[in-house]
Parts: sequence; structure tokens; C-alpha cells
Amino acid sequence: MRTKDDIKQEALFEATVKLVNEIGFAASSVSKIAKEAGISPATIYIYYKNKEDLLVSTYVEIKKNIGRAIHEDFDDTLPIRDILKQVWYRMFDYISKHPGYFQYTEQFSNSPYQALVDKKKIEKFFDPVIHVVSRGIEQKIIKNADFHILAAFIFYPILAISNSRVCLDFELTDQYIETAFTMAWDAIRL
Amino acid sequence: MRTKDDIKQEALFEATVKLVNEIGFAASSVSKIAKEAGISPATIYIYYKNKEDLLVSTYVEIKKNIGRAIHEDFDDTLPIRDILKQVWYRMFDYISKHPGYFQYTEQFSNSPYQALVDKKKIEKFFDPVIHVVSRGIEQKIIKNADFHILAAFIFYPILAISNSRVCLDFELTDQYIETAFTMAWDAIRL
Repeated sequence: MRTKDDIKQEALFEATVKLVNEIGFAASSVSKIAKEAGISPATIYIYYKNKEDLLVSTYVEIKKNIGRAIHEDFDDTLPIRDILKQVWYRMFDYISKHPGYFQYTEQFSNSPYQALVDKKKIEKFFDPVIHVVSRGIEQKIIKNADFHILAAFIFYPILAISNSRVCLDFELTDQYIETAFTMAWDAIRL
Repeated sequence: MRTKDDIKQEALFEATVKLVNEIGFAASSVSKIAKEAGISPATIYIYYKNKEDLLVSTYVEIKKNIGRAIHEDFDDTLPIRDILKQVWYRMFDYISKHPGYFQYTEQFSNSPYQALVDKKKIEKFFDPVIHVVSRGIEQKIIKNADFHILAAFIFYPILAISNSRVCLDFELTDQYIETAFTMAWDAIRL
């Protein structure tokens, strides 16, 4: 059951994402975020040390949610292409449903706050899929490259494709999405 | 020869990019941008109708510069893979040298201002490479997909890879860059 605390924290999370996306990191003060969330600034300081802590925690929370979403029904006994296809579709689905979260993480990655993030902690959320990619490399199914480069071709294009604002002039059909996965796979397979 | 006007416009361009990247679109007022550029707000209104016009023009200017940079020594008599490889490397080089410009365009694409851009005008800057991709599709060298999807796999990963802040924990060697182009090509080729 969600407690009163959970509800407050959720309101705070959504308010932080919404406000930062609208007016940017610099202008998003703790008091403005509190107002947006409908709670008092004092309450924010119960949960977070300061503005930096709130912004970084929001980023980590989004990454955790993405990690959880893409690993739903994860089955690492399937062929590697099938596993990655499922992860890819779940990621596509998640991005399409939560464009605001990705706008936040993109902005965050380009901000000075990214230096405050524990990279190892973030990587943990993606352990299962990272592990499958490593196995693919060992088995000479996937090209032997750094995970960051592989990810740039498997997952990063999803952002470009699903961002309907970038791609105003074409409609995303199932066929397009299927073609896009084929491209992602062709990019990384040996 | 650069006139006094050119110098002012360049200062304004750089100041707009710098300030928006630092404090976001909402907080970047005409007066703050003028101060950053070292010119009077009144002078800005000689060149631009309003803040929107300045922000949109800055975006268009960056896109024009990218278009010019990637088509340097463009030779469409070469094999299609070679043409795209050259364009890819020029893009990579440009992004690496001007990360601030890309931070601006990424933020801009996620802002309400993108609705004010003449998409056809932007496409014109990329006509030669778009034309080569179309020829590749006709000749069954490149997959038959929408240019936006193809671009998401050729050019978009460059942003992820060259963004040193995203990829803190590995160094970009020539080998990595070569591998990355191979992946881009494998993604789009038939």
C-alpha cells in the first residue's frame, strides 16, 4: 500500500521533472518545485539535503525505472537477438509513454549535475542487459566494442525516433519500428 | 572582410548559445544575452524582432554551419559508402569541436520553439547527403526506410559517442571511431 510519504515523494518527483523541463535546472528553485508539487519547502528537506540532492535523486530514480521497465519478463535463456529485441521494444515503449523523463535525463547529462552521479550505481540497473551483450561478444555474435558505443547504436537512436517532435513529418508504424530494430541489430552484430 | 556588424552578430550568436546552455531558454532574457555579448539590448532589436526570433535564428545558423561543415570537399562521384564515411567523420569532428552547439540544438528540439522553425529550410542545408542516401536506396545499397530513421542510426549515435560527459569512462581512439562508423554503415546498408 502506498503511504502518505510515498504519495508526497511521487508528487515531488513528477513536479521536479515537469518544472525542470519547462524552465530548466537553473530556474528550478526548491520553493518553485515545492509549489508545483503542492507541498511545503520544509517537507522537501525531510527527504533531500538540498536542490542538488533532489535533482540527482530524480535522475537516479528515472534510470532505475527505465532499468526495471526494460527488464520486464527478462529471460536470458532465449537467443541473444530475441532478448535484445524484447529489451529494445520495452525501451521504445517506455520512451514513447514517458517523453518527459527522457527530456529530463538528456538535459541532466548535459548539465554540471551529472558529475555528482554514482556511475556504478546507475550501471547496476542495467546489469542484466549489459551481461547479455558481453555474452554476445564472447560468443562472437556481437561486435567486440565498448558497451557505450554499442549502446549508442542499440538504444540511443530510439530517442531520436520516438521523439515525435523531431520527426514531425512521418508516422511511426509497426513496420517502421520493426525496421528500426533490424537496423539496431545489424549495427552491433558481427 | 568582417564588418563591425558581422562581429556584433557573431558575439550575439556565441552569447546566445553560451547563456542558453548555462541557464536554459526561459531564463535567457534579451537583456542578459545582450550583457553577455557586450552590446546594448537596443542593438539586438536591430537584427532580431524579439527573443523568439533570436533563439530560432541561432538554431537555424547552427544547422547551416553543420550542413556546410559535413559537405566540405563533398564529391558525389565517389562510392556511396565512401561519401557517407567522409560526411560521418566531418560530423564527428564538428560535434567534438563544438559540443555547445549540439547542446543548444538538442535543448531547442525539446522546446516549444522548435514549432517556429521552417523545416524545409533546414532540410535544404542537408540536401546533398539526403540525395546520396536516396540514391543508395534506389540502387539497393541502403535499406528502404524513411530518412529520419536512417539518420537516427547514421548520425544520432555520434552525439552519444562524442559527448565525453556521457562516456566518461572510456577514451575515444581512432579504432573506436572507425568501429563506430562500421556500425553506422552496417545499420543502414542492405
